[in-house]
Amino acid sequence: MKRIDIGLIGLGTVGSGLVRALEANGPLIRRNSGLDIRLRLVAERDWRRRRDVRVPRRLRAADARALIADPGVDIVVELIGGCGDARRYILEALRRGKHVVTANKALLAEHGREILGLAQARGLDLYYEASVCGAIPVVKALREALVSNRIRSVLGIVNGTCNYILSRMTEAGIEFDEALLEAQAMGYAEADPRLDIDGLDSAHKLAILATISSGGWVPLGAVHAEGIGGVTAVDIRYAREFDYVVKLLAIYKREGRAVEARVHPTLIPSGHLLASVGGAYNAVCVRGEPAGDIVLYGRGAGREPTSSAVLADIVDIGRNIARGCCGRVPVVAARMGRAPVRPVEEIETAYYLRFSVIDRPGVLAGITGILGRLGISIASFLQIDRRAGSVVPVVIMTHRAREKDVRRALARIDRLPFVKARTMLIRVEARI
Amino acid sequence: MKRIDIGLIGLGTVGSGLVRALEANGPLIRRNSGLDIRLRLVAERDWRRRRDVRVPRRLRAADARALIADPGVDIVVELIGGCGDARRYILEALRRGKHVVTANKALLAEHGREILGLAQARGLDLYYEASVCGAIPVVKALREALVSNRIRSVLGIVNGTCNYILSRMTEAGIEFDEALLEAQAMGYAEADPRLDIDGLDSAHKLAILATISSGGWVPLGAVHAEGIGGVTAVDIRYAREFDYVVKLLAIYKREGRAVEARVHPTLIPSGHLLASVGGAYNAVCVRGEPAGDIVLYGRGAGREPTSSAVLADIVDIGRNIARGCCGRVPVVAARMGRAPVRPVEEIETAYYLRFSVIDRPGVLAGITGILGRLGISIASFLQIDRRAGSVVPVVIMTHRAREKDVRRALARIDRLPFVKARTMLIRVEARI
Repeated sequence: MKRIDIGLIGLGTVGSGLVRALEANGPLIRRNSGLDIRLRLVAERDWRRRRDVRVPRRLRAADARALIADPGVDIVVELIGGCGDARRYILEALRRGKHVVTANKALLAEHGREILGLAQARGLDLYYEASVCGAIPVVKALREALVSNRIRSVLGIVNGTCNYILSRMTEAGIEFDEALLEAQAMGYAEADPRLDIDGLDSAHKLAILATISSGGWVPLGAVHAEGIGGVTAVDIRYAREFDYVVKLLAIYKREGRAVEARVHPTLIPSGHLLASVGGAYNAVCVRGEPAGDIVLYGRGAGREPTSSAVLADIVDIGRNIARGCCGRVPVVAARMGRAPVRPVEEIETAYYLRFSVIDRPGVLAGITGILGRLGISIASFLQIDRRAGSVVPVVIMTHRAREKDVRRALARIDRLPFVKARTMLIRVEARI
Repeated sequence: MKRIDIGLIGLGTVGSGLVRALEANGPLIRRNSGLDIRLRLVAERDWRRRRDVRVPRRLRAADARALIADPGVDIVVELIGGCGDARRYILEALRRGKHVVTANKALLAEHGREILGLAQARGLDLYYEASVCGAIPVVKALREALVSNRIRSVLGIVNGTCNYILSRMTEAGIEFDEALLEAQAMGYAEADPRLDIDGLDSAHKLAILATISSGGWVPLGAVHAEGIGGVTAVDIRYAREFDYVVKLLAIYKREGRAVEARVHPTLIPSGHLLASVGGAYNAVCVRGEPAGDIVLYGRGAGREPTSSAVLADIVDIGRNIARGCCGRVPVVAARMGRAPVRPVEEIETAYYLRFSVIDRPGVLAGITGILGRLGISIASFLQIDRRAGSVVPVVIMTHRAREKDVRRALARIDRLPFVKARTMLIRVEARI
């Protein structure tokens, strides 16, 4: 049985989960993989923190650099996160000929080209399943199971915090602020929740998924990201009237030569499987040719699910080491040119537009006139509240239109005298 | 770029889909895989049949044996199905040192031990993703992504025909016979639909999933299989009253040292993701430790989805050939002893019991008395129709009970004078 020695950098939530899973499932992993996976060294800054796993002193590295320099370490597992030390450690590990497993989405989204490129150039394996959607094997699905598919689109609920908040707003009819407090009380949202609710965490994951799907480099800066902070209970209620639900989606699409990569609140049909994804779960819907639609669902974060993905990567690389075939699945699909990403102004989709207008005759004509002159056609219209003379919400669902034209229309509409607040725009995925 | 030559046996629905996908996505497959996958030979009995793909004469093998004997063929792809010729061809291919890809679930369920064992013994790859749930990468997920997980259960909707029929019965309130006719008219059911509706097709797939999940051989004969022919519109209506839906599930569970492998109509909570799987789609819910629950959903049959899975297997083996690492993922997880399968009489689960009784006082006491004496406790009771003196359905949902005890109780109850038809038993998965 081939022995594989791993060096673990970071004994936080996921790191200690990995140690625990290796202990709990050791015999099973040996049976299933034919590998004897051993923890050789662990680098951790704060050994005094209370943990439910014990790492014997002889396995404690002086520091991460000493761990990386140890000739006995086959695979460096980076679980500290962030783009500072983590980047330096991974680059150093690759330069020293170590294979790498990481769960670091921010690092890959920001510096993936450098890091993946170096691994590729050195013929080393760099696996990162845990960086996107925890236990869900979406990276493996795209890189292997769907390898022969033309990936038309990837639509993902990839942030559990946002999904929990939107699910609670939908179920309980509460506003965003209240749902956020609940999420924090439940431990689903950080004290500083901005990375999640502003859509940046989703954008990190989308940059990675879009890079794999397109075969070209999609850097974080090319991903359009909007958060869920502006979604109101009224929007969710109106969406339901049209038989839609509101989800924060990470969307990759390929149409023609250019790709789209965007994160934003989205109306999706309430009958679609993604609409049933509740609470802190994640799900990704991949449309490929010839596979058709595939949905992968599971726990997208947390210690156990993430350690499952890290272990899968360790076994994959271990199998390559045992058989002398590292680089068997190329780190990047091709010479990684930059993928041509369509600016969001150029996309075409359907829109949900909620206008805040004074309830009086002529208002609808004013709005629809501007929309019509810009070529935006209306699919449906709804005004639930009627209070003559007061400000009420009026909702229009458009057919497919160009974002540029919609923005131009809204700039004009929002200057009309009877429009009393900025119009809410939510994009619609009508045909999924 | 490494060239991989495949020999295709069978140019039917899936075979021609494979040829078409290879043509349509050739450059993409080369870019993604780094392999030049070529069709070297095709064996087909009836070249005169009309097809939408053209195979040049020089690629037409005299017969399957000539194809297998061709020294240039790296991978034999068996797409004729059945357990006769297919078995002989695959065994012959393995004896000649060829790797094999097959979509043949019946063959693996019946002769898997022989076939997988030979491949393992020869150090050859034998991949079979397409044998279970078409495009859904469930075999890869279990063998690779969840390799370090203790698989607690696998619950699958693995037969699109049955799922279509049950979905239509649920949506339209129609009876089985009518829904079957619809399925046949839509092309979702064969003229002879018994393989599907009797649960045998699902049992084939479950035997394969249970073998992978348990790491031991679960032959078809050890799978308990019941079909959907006995499910009535009344059952579906009562299930809904209890907030359940009826699905044909393939169920694998590991509890203690023994495993369960059974296919039968099942009540599942209507809020569970599997309950939302409609029409001819398939889905599989895997519960692993540490991954938690993972659901994989997609098109489970048909030409395009199946050819996607076949292509994934071809690329996987091609990568192994290119890197000299065939057998990298063992064909079977361990020395394949027979898995200890618990007889269905010994399982414990909750039950939906629909009694056909004369509506008169004392009936409930008679039934509950027998259940109580056998230690079966009642979770809820429902009688919707009231027609004193006539035969009406009465439904009882039990807590967890042993199947043996339930069967004994029903044998007694069905002999009571006021019980006018055999009691309907549907097992319940309450805690998924």
